[in-house]
Amino acid sequence: MPQTEHSDCRAAARLRALRRCMAEAGYDAFVIPTSDPHLCEYQPRDWMFREAFSGFTGSAGLLIVTPFAAALWTDSRYWEQAQMELTPLAGSAEAVTLMRQGQADTPEPADWLVAELPEGASIALDPNMISAAEFDRLQVRLLAADRSLVCDASLLPQVWSDRPAPQRTQAFGFTFGQAPRSEKLGAVRQAMRAKGAGALFLSTLDDIAWLTNLRAHDIAHTPVLTGFLLVTDDKCVLYADCAALGQDAADSLQSDGISLRPYALALTEAPALTRGLAVWLDENATSRAAAQAFEEVNDIAPVRGLRPTQSLKCIKSAAELKLLEDTMAHDGAALVELFAWLEDRRRQGTPVTEGDIVEKLHECRLSRPGFMEESFATICAFGPNAALPHYQPHGAGATLSGDSLLLIDSGGHYEGGTTDITRTLVWGEASRAMKRDFTAVLRGHIALAVSQFPEGCYASQLDTLARHPLWEIGADYGHGTGHGVGFCLSVHEGPVHISPRAPTVAASRVRKGLVLSNEPGLYRAGRWGVRTENLVTPVAAESAADAMSPMLVMKTLTLCPIDTRLVDTSMMTPYEIWWLNDYHRRVREALTPLVSARARAWLVRATDII
Amino acid sequence: MPQTEHSDCRAAARLRALRRCMAEAGYDAFVIPTSDPHLCEYQPRDWMFREAFSGFTGSAGLLIVTPFAAALWTDSRYWEQAQMELTPLAGSAEAVTLMRQGQADTPEPADWLVAELPEGASIALDPNMISAAEFDRLQVRLLAADRSLVCDASLLPQVWSDRPAPQRTQAFGFTFGQAPRSEKLGAVRQAMRAKGAGALFLSTLDDIAWLTNLRAHDIAHTPVLTGFLLVTDDKCVLYADCAALGQDAADSLQSDGISLRPYALALTEAPALTRGLAVWLDENATSRAAAQAFEEVNDIAPVRGLRPTQSLKCIKSAAELKLLEDTMAHDGAALVELFAWLEDRRRQGTPVTEGDIVEKLHECRLSRPGFMEESFATICAFGPNAALPHYQPHGAGATLSGDSLLLIDSGGHYEGGTTDITRTLVWGEASRAMKRDFTAVLRGHIALAVSQFPEGCYASQLDTLARHPLWEIGADYGHGTGHGVGFCLSVHEGPVHISPRAPTVAASRVRKGLVLSNEPGLYRAGRWGVRTENLVTPVAAESAADAMSPMLVMKTLTLCPIDTRLVDTSMMTPYEIWWLNDYHRRVREALTPLVSARARAWLVRATDII
Repeated sequence: MPQTEHSDCRAAARLRALRRCMAEAGYDAFVIPTSDPHLCEYQPRDWMFREAFSGFTGSAGLLIVTPFAAALWTDSRYWEQAQMELTPLAGSAEAVTLMRQGQADTPEPADWLVAELPEGASIALDPNMISAAEFDRLQVRLLAADRSLVCDASLLPQVWSDRPAPQRTQAFGFTFGQAPRSEKLGAVRQAMRAKGAGALFLSTLDDIAWLTNLRAHDIAHTPVLTGFLLVTDDKCVLYADCAALGQDAADSLQSDGISLRPYALALTEAPALTRGLAVWLDENATSRAAAQAFEEVNDIAPVRGLRPTQSLKCIKSAAELKLLEDTMAHDGAALVELFAWLEDRRRQGTPVTEGDIVEKLHECRLSRPGFMEESFATICAFGPNAALPHYQPHGAGATLSGDSLLLIDSGGHYEGGTTDITRTLVWGEASRAMKRDFTAVLRGHIALAVSQFPEGCYASQLDTLARHPLWEIGADYGHGTGHGVGFCLSVHEGPVHISPRAPTVAASRVRKGLVLSNEPGLYRAGRWGVRTENLVTPVAAESAADAMSPMLVMKTLTLCPIDTRLVDTSMMTPYEIWWLNDYHRRVREALTPLVSARARAWLVRATDII
Repeated sequence: MPQTEHSDCRAAARLRALRRCMAEAGYDAFVIPTSDPHLCEYQPRDWMFREAFSGFTGSAGLLIVTPFAAALWTDSRYWEQAQMELTPLAGSAEAVTLMRQGQADTPEPADWLVAELPEGASIALDPNMISAAEFDRLQVRLLAADRSLVCDASLLPQVWSDRPAPQRTQAFGFTFGQAPRSEKLGAVRQAMRAKGAGALFLSTLDDIAWLTNLRAHDIAHTPVLTGFLLVTDDKCVLYADCAALGQDAADSLQSDGISLRPYALALTEAPALTRGLAVWLDENATSRAAAQAFEEVNDIAPVRGLRPTQSLKCIKSAAELKLLEDTMAHDGAALVELFAWLEDRRRQGTPVTEGDIVEKLHECRLSRPGFMEESFATICAFGPNAALPHYQPHGAGATLSGDSLLLIDSGGHYEGGTTDITRTLVWGEASRAMKRDFTAVLRGHIALAVSQFPEGCYASQLDTLARHPLWEIGADYGHGTGHGVGFCLSVHEGPVHISPRAPTVAASRVRKGLVLSNEPGLYRAGRWGVRTENLVTPVAAESAADAMSPMLVMKTLTLCPIDTRLVDTSMMTPYEIWWLNDYHRRVREALTPLVSARARAWLVRATDII
């Protein structure tokens, strides 16, 4: 994903203009989250307000502007980058202060607002850029401190004069592994009846793409179209820009009872259509602006709670899982081609940069059947860079040299599903310490891959399985162990996450058909990073005699060698060694027919038993 | 703990009287939780309203009375008992319907109220019997459904004409292992300043006992006195019934700057004393009545959040931990005497009942130095009874016969701290299935006892360590793996719990000095139950080379043999077997000097290596 470039002086000029408009409107602060009307993980370019007004290009952050100060909160992944990008204006009137989110002495944004502004202060934000739930929390906090929160949807767009036009690409029907729309709509309507909802309003683009069996390329790394969707018992209306949809797709929708209306009418027409109905609005996936639009015309209290599409689409169909098997083999084959190429380059002594690898990997995937695009910007990190879990090379990045580890975390959207895989390779000689770290991570990975657990347990309960072998060597990792993965949709898909902090609610229970990542890691600042990631899906475990309840076990989907040069078998149990050899047997069988002769020789060596 | 007996017709007469008074007051429902003004785990006898009006004697439940219906919610532990106790009035106008809490088709109480009562209905409860936080949640729920929640503190006491008098026992100073009051008060005041609170009001009796270094016997199984406590920067006022306190204790309090005022004045005088101060009220540990009393006279918004005494007292001092070591040896010795006696009875062929064992165990503990009382009613369950995790024998209970398992979960309050221990023994011959279940539980217990983990991780992250070996045999348990234990205070002490559902907040982080239980279990309905419980405390782990952060490991405090006749070593790793043998070596060394000759012979056999 190419980084959008904004020159520093443009950000400064916009900040000055924002302050002038704030003064006219009587606002004491403007809160600018990294968000958009669809609460996407990757923002559309025309909603990158936080970047436009601060110059900070990272993917996460919150900007607050007052007449005399501006502060940017972002997490540890971006501290260095933000510091660099904010530096040019340091000392000027348009300086933005970096707030290191998560550090003990960094105030929460709401606390900062209360400390900086007097009682009675008026704090504005664009209601399109915050979820209804977050808005409520912020409002309660500010009201308790006698500050008021004001919604203003026009000021920011007005100030950003060179705002890019919305990106609208051609949408297309997507039927690979998908149930017919009518069937999905039937399931959604059944969930609505069970919940007592007369209507459902969806803002999240992956839910809409799943339900309508449409895809497009409006958003980076997520093959979705921009729209809103309203479902009632007898209507289904897609608010999207018709021109971009194409007549064929439109006709097909029409015949499935889905009517098309202009995107711009969504927040006026849809609320009007639901008068007298209890409307289901997922408060965490609906903007405050949308929620308010419904409140204003509808007296009936909305139904809250997780949208049904999220619970339905996270369980992959048998057809999707079948396609995913082929996709995994092709994606693994692309990586094997990369690794063989890399070994050649090393043997030839030709210098290689992180950027070269990103480019080559893209090329390897491009030739694979059904490949559409990367499912996220490739993380390719050598040596100390790999100690930053989300590092992405800017341009060429570091050149591989000396003895260290190379971490590559990448994935693709294919017609046959989405992949997400991390491999860590040795470059040069593997030291004892590298092997210890790699093997501990591998043991964590294997523990989650082989352990059986009760069907319906909370995903958070599985996290410790992968983390425990890291603890044994005095290590740990700051991220979760796994996330859900969409089917040719978002690479991070809710509602199930394997993390110590994942909520213990019904939606977080582990069931058959989920597709989750298994990605423990270990990051030694200034030295290296290790992560080994496969996608897995829970299947029924062979039932033990006297089992008290149905048990599940993960089936590993990803097919790609794990670097055995980094494995210290003396740290492993015989069963763990067996697992690795058996996995490599599967990988060799599946990938051999799919790779070039050069890569085949590499594959045979890489999957040799240990 | 002797069960309070209420005859059925008394409960029915009270229910009739309650309905008459409700009609006069215009209430459509009265909600009667199992609670009291101090939100104790064990209710004082004069606050057993739920029992008085329903006849149900279990320790947990919620009664709701409307003009035409009465319904009692209780959890699965009590379904059988409640059904039995509610049966005599079934079919009459005073019938109480059992609501099986946790069953999928059982409505939540608030939903039931909304379904049963018309819009505009007026629902009453006694604000002394609900926490401020729970009250707020219930009120929000009912207001959203156009029902109103009314506080009435006088109706229930008025209707319960033969209500027992409050139990007030002689309070006494308790200094074993305790820092001086002045030091504890200093730490509390420091926490208050850090939180920006000008005053702290405590309702919870164990917090007050800890801070004042006082104990009494007002409440079953918790050696505390009944009172409220107010702390400001220059004052500390204990609201308790002075007559019961004794002149010596009162003088000693006075000299430490703690003044004594009558209990009955707490909710009027304390609020008046804090006018203009921000008062820290833990919303989960303060009744709605108390919170309201402060709101009424104090304009300053209260400070919410976990009370500081909870975070301070959960970390045991070095002196407490030292005393606890001796206490553990004596408590283990008491159990060894019991087990030796039990073996004699078996050899002699004398029948033994569950009740006999409870009585004998009490006798064995009575002779131990510093023993005060049981820390909870002993759970002694044979065969299928042990499949109910909280079973307690009524009277004699079952007679031990045939081949099965005997589960004994018990504990004591000693001057040197509180114990909580569970052992499962074989009676007769151990079958393969019994050994498999016992060994899986033991492996879970050992996993938590030996694993190292990062200092400051969440307690919920440790739960899976103990549960995983159960999963391996297709089993699981419905309760958490561990709870905090007070020092001669409550046997269930917050805020740290090892459970999948424990919150991931700062207060739940694992730190040195906590005392926690380690008690995985396995319950086969109709057959048997297994639980093995020791108390443990986190200590620094031997640091590994290259450790990324300080690591902790549990030190096992409880000293008592684990039944090796039930161990299947073929299921265990050599390290697990080593742990068990090493534990038995420690147990034998510590307990040999403390037991009778007869018990010594038993101890030597029981701690033999396997």
